[in-house]
Amino acid sequence: MGHTIREKAKLLARVRRLKGQMEAVERSLDAEAPCGEVLQLLASIRGALAGLTHEVMEDHLHEHVVHAADDAEREKAAAELAEALRTYIR
Amino acid sequence: MGHTIREKAKLLARVRRLKGQMEAVERSLDAEAPCGEVLQLLASIRGALAGLTHEVMEDHLHEHVVHAADDAEREKAAAELAEALRTYIR
Amino acid sequence: MGHTIREKAKLLARVRRLKGQMEAVERSLDAEAPCGEVLQLLASIRGALAGLTHEVMEDHLHEHVVHAADDAEREKAAAELAEALRTYIR
Amino acid sequence: MGHTIREKAKLLARVRRLKGQMEAVERSLDAEAPCGEVLQLLASIRGALAGLTHEVMEDHLHEHVVHAADDAEREKAAAELAEALRTYIR
Repeated sequence: MGHTIREKAKLLARVRRLKGQMEAVERSLDAEAPCGEVLQLLASIRGALAGLTHEVMEDHLHEHVVHAADDAEREKAAAELAEALRTYIR
Repeated sequence: MGHTIREKAKLLARVRRLKGQMEAVERSLDAEAPCGEVLQLLASIRGALAGLTHEVMEDHLHEHVVHAADDAEREKAAAELAEALRTYIR
Repeated sequence: MGHTIREKAKLLARVRRLKGQMEAVERSLDAEAPCGEVLQLLASIRGALAGLTHEVMEDHLHEHVVHAADDAEREKAAAELAEALRTYIR
Repeated sequence: MGHTIREKAKLLARVRRLKGQMEAVERSLDAEAPCGEVLQLLASIRGALAGLTHEVMEDHLHEHVVHAADDAEREKAAAELAEALRTYIR
């Protein structure tokens, strides 16, 4: 990434929270919790993962596309973003 | 948009195909077609709409972010893209 | 579908609204409206299409799975729903 | 859940794989890996999470809707599924 220390710390905090949410799913499956409960946990993980992804994309757009070192870098970073969008916009 | 004539023609062709697909859903509901059939038509519209959206985003990224007239325009176009992504990445 | 007249009328009204929204995209592309505007129209269509799809799925679940004529019909309708979900949950 | 032992084991294996994938994201952010790489890891997690969710939904549909103990249970389980779908179909 090569972004600011502050952004890195924020992203890492989000990933750690996600790991904790995944462990909650593991415990709920292990304890044979009601399906509705498991599905709610999974939906909240999807939301948190999307929030993290949107943040990485925004950082990428800002640092590597808008503030690219030169035009070639800019083209390359934009192509990476367009490629990443394929998973989400379908 | 202000893009090339060729891109405009391609996007308009996609929109017209989508209108035709929407009319097929209308007919299938009107004729009380099986739900499974209606759901398949709706899924194919979602796919086609996503394809069109991805193309508009890619054009926008290329024309207005990568090839912006100046830095202020670039920042503005990037912010518009980040905003549009919120609907899809969640 | 074979659902109630009232449900059919509601679904058809949603489809007609969607056709109108698609025509708004067509006009905006034709008039070379700003990309940000086109992207907003496309996002609102995605939302409306998802709303319609959720309603068809809920009707299907209620009419053909919960209130199936017999167990064989119920299995078949549930399999159709699980298949339709593949497009959305990925 | 109250499902079969075999299903439970399969679901738990998927959750553990997801935890491993989340740790890979953590390492990649910590090592300041290229954004494109982080975005690919996040996209693969989204796919794996969706696969797990689809499986829990299918199990729920099969065990608690199709094979419900009685009609009241069936209605309740169908309503839980319809509610869970709101996160994905929008």
